[in-house]
Amino acid sequence: MPISKIAVIGFGVVGSGAVELFYKNKELIEKRSGRKMDIKWICDLRDFPGSPFADKFTKNFDDILNDPEITVAAEMIGGKTLAYDYTKKLLSRGVSVVTSNKELVAYHGAELIKLAKENKCNYFFEASVGGGIPIIRPLHQCLAANRIERISGILNGTTNFILTKMIYDHVAFDEALAEAQRLGYAESDPSADIDGADACRKLCILGSLAFGKHIYPEYVHCSGIRQITLDDVEYAETAGYAVKLIGLIDRTEKGLVATVCPRLVSVNNPLSGVNDVYNAIMVRGDGVGDTLFYGRGAGKEATASAVVADIIDAVKHENADIASLTWEDSTDRDFIAPYKSADVRVYVRVKCNDADSLKGLITQFFGYVDFIPRKQRSQNELAFITPLIEEYQINKKLALLSEHADIMKRIRLL
Amino acid sequence: MPISKIAVIGFGVVGSGAVELFYKNKELIEKRSGRKMDIKWICDLRDFPGSPFADKFTKNFDDILNDPEITVAAEMIGGKTLAYDYTKKLLSRGVSVVTSNKELVAYHGAELIKLAKENKCNYFFEASVGGGIPIIRPLHQCLAANRIERISGILNGTTNFILTKMIYDHVAFDEALAEAQRLGYAESDPSADIDGADACRKLCILGSLAFGKHIYPEYVHCSGIRQITLDDVEYAETAGYAVKLIGLIDRTEKGLVATVCPRLVSVNNPLSGVNDVYNAIMVRGDGVGDTLFYGRGAGKEATASAVVADIIDAVKHENADIASLTWEDSTDRDFIAPYKSADVRVYVRVKCNDADSLKGLITQFFGYVDFIPRKQRSQNELAFITPLIEEYQINKKLALLSEHADIMKRIRLL
Repeated sequence: MPISKIAVIGFGVVGSGAVELFYKNKELIEKRSGRKMDIKWICDLRDFPGSPFADKFTKNFDDILNDPEITVAAEMIGGKTLAYDYTKKLLSRGVSVVTSNKELVAYHGAELIKLAKENKCNYFFEASVGGGIPIIRPLHQCLAANRIERISGILNGTTNFILTKMIYDHVAFDEALAEAQRLGYAESDPSADIDGADACRKLCILGSLAFGKHIYPEYVHCSGIRQITLDDVEYAETAGYAVKLIGLIDRTEKGLVATVCPRLVSVNNPLSGVNDVYNAIMVRGDGVGDTLFYGRGAGKEATASAVVADIIDAVKHENADIASLTWEDSTDRDFIAPYKSADVRVYVRVKCNDADSLKGLITQFFGYVDFIPRKQRSQNELAFITPLIEEYQINKKLALLSEHADIMKRIRLL
Repeated sequence: MPISKIAVIGFGVVGSGAVELFYKNKELIEKRSGRKMDIKWICDLRDFPGSPFADKFTKNFDDILNDPEITVAAEMIGGKTLAYDYTKKLLSRGVSVVTSNKELVAYHGAELIKLAKENKCNYFFEASVGGGIPIIRPLHQCLAANRIERISGILNGTTNFILTKMIYDHVAFDEALAEAQRLGYAESDPSADIDGADACRKLCILGSLAFGKHIYPEYVHCSGIRQITLDDVEYAETAGYAVKLIGLIDRTEKGLVATVCPRLVSVNNPLSGVNDVYNAIMVRGDGVGDTLFYGRGAGKEATASAVVADIIDAVKHENADIASLTWEDSTDRDFIAPYKSADVRVYVRVKCNDADSLKGLITQFFGYVDFIPRKQRSQNELAFITPLIEEYQINKKLALLSEHADIMKRIRLL
């Protein structure tokens, strides 16, 4: 039996995890796939003295590119400069590439998939969304018979850890962030996580796959969790909701509405119970209804699990592309509707001195709202949830309200 | 582009659902798969006057078997007599078969997969477990790099509906069953569901795939939910658990331990929140950790979603079998360990007149147990949860205890 030769590019957390998992379960993997395979090269600019993989290291990418034995390469360097360049070169030579690089897929996925097809190889990225959670294949294979109506998900473990600390331990945002950093869940500059950019990239990948057109990050309305306070978390809890950073794409009559923002999630929605660094993605199809995929959204071993699965699939599909893993590169964004055109309910917290008269005013503007009981909260504030109407309309009504009271916070409901 | 011709065998709930979903989303399906396809035959012994598919019906299976145009057939007649015969004939001719028939796969899966491979076609059964929930492909493809440590799942919607009614509406078992029958969730003879046989078949399929050896239903210790009372449900709730019918396979040092039985599931386990007719399957891999797959476990549209996904995949893999979808047919059951050899905690409810002295005795037998507070319960009973020890040992201790008190119920914990 011929042995498929694999190259690993980038030996950081995910890269080393993938190599270790591969060798740990090599026998099982080869049995399951019916093929022999081995890692021939590991490319990294750093030195790894004493590594058991010493015979595989190279600092020169060309060693891989020019090696005709290599049929699959795993790119785990991240970013969209060097990784982009390497990936294009490999695919152009007919070498399949698997990656955990969500940024590269979110910005250049359509182009790279097309390039792979042209060269009869594959570009796989199961590890780019949800760490080890199987979601890319289930979405484009198992749910292929469905028109996808909605994708909603908790796509970032760092922010979910912070919000979980706030909800369960009643710790303020800054303190929860500091703990996430202490535990290595958040980087020293945490902005890509807490401002939503990371979740946004993952949402773009899922959306592109589900809806068939490349959804670029700039098509998505994105806001993070910096503004969420313990007050909000506690009001939400009183009303039967958990505050979560939700990536959401809805198919509406006006087009796709794509947002990443904090939302109040009802305790009846399984996403509300997804805690700590766990991720979960809910997919609604016209046949299957709601399905949910849950697991560790990050971490060395979990992400390695997805990378190695992609390697196995790439080896099995040498010289045959997987046609269904594809989407169009859209030249315009006509298929995206303004997020404010979507119907939504909004949680609003306002300062007030005279609750009764303000309640009257709010009811006058909105017709009917759910006021959230105060329960150990400050007397001079009022929280309520609007009815389900177009966000434009809600904003108009809140503009009127702001002439009478200071609006401190607004958070959408899921 | 050539058109792949498909046959549908059995036009009941799932069969008609699959045909309807296929035509509803045909354009999308063909675009995604990059292939044209059409349903040529629908085989059923009944008449369907006025059906829009009138030109496709046949009562003669040989019309399908002898049609060289047919490359994929969907078997949705159920059972393991006629379905077994048809499937063997089709696979022997190199026609791929997809099915929702869990009974057939649980009893003859290894043989039929082997037959498919010998004839360079495929036998797919995504719809046989969890209705529309993607689980078969995620398990053998996306988690292929993992050594699977545990599979635990809520695999039967009928029993989960009944238990949910008991938990949330405090309705007794008989009444909950009657409602399930009224709503069409349970059959007039509900034994296959409530005694666990249905869940057992599904567990066998998942286990065979995950652990690589055919796990026959008779290898699984199986008990249903008939004995669960409102008392048990309420004690469980007090202690922080929900009673669920759980299919479980654990890899232990002694071998695989496979059971289907009611279990107390901690509220911290996501399975505890899976309600109504929903199913969920948790898979623990040595790389990925715990992943969970959730959705509607039954129903016309959901199951059709999985059947049509399999049809698409079978069409895409004409003349190429998917090597990883396989397991060995084991001639002995050495790899299965006796379920009583597993460590477990058990909830026990006993009759008692003198709680204090009985508590002393229980503590003496078990060292330490968690007594569940009575909270509006009868004074002359006592409920507790044993420590984690081998089930053989627990049974020995309970035998001793039964000399002093009447043991009314024992339910394992997950």
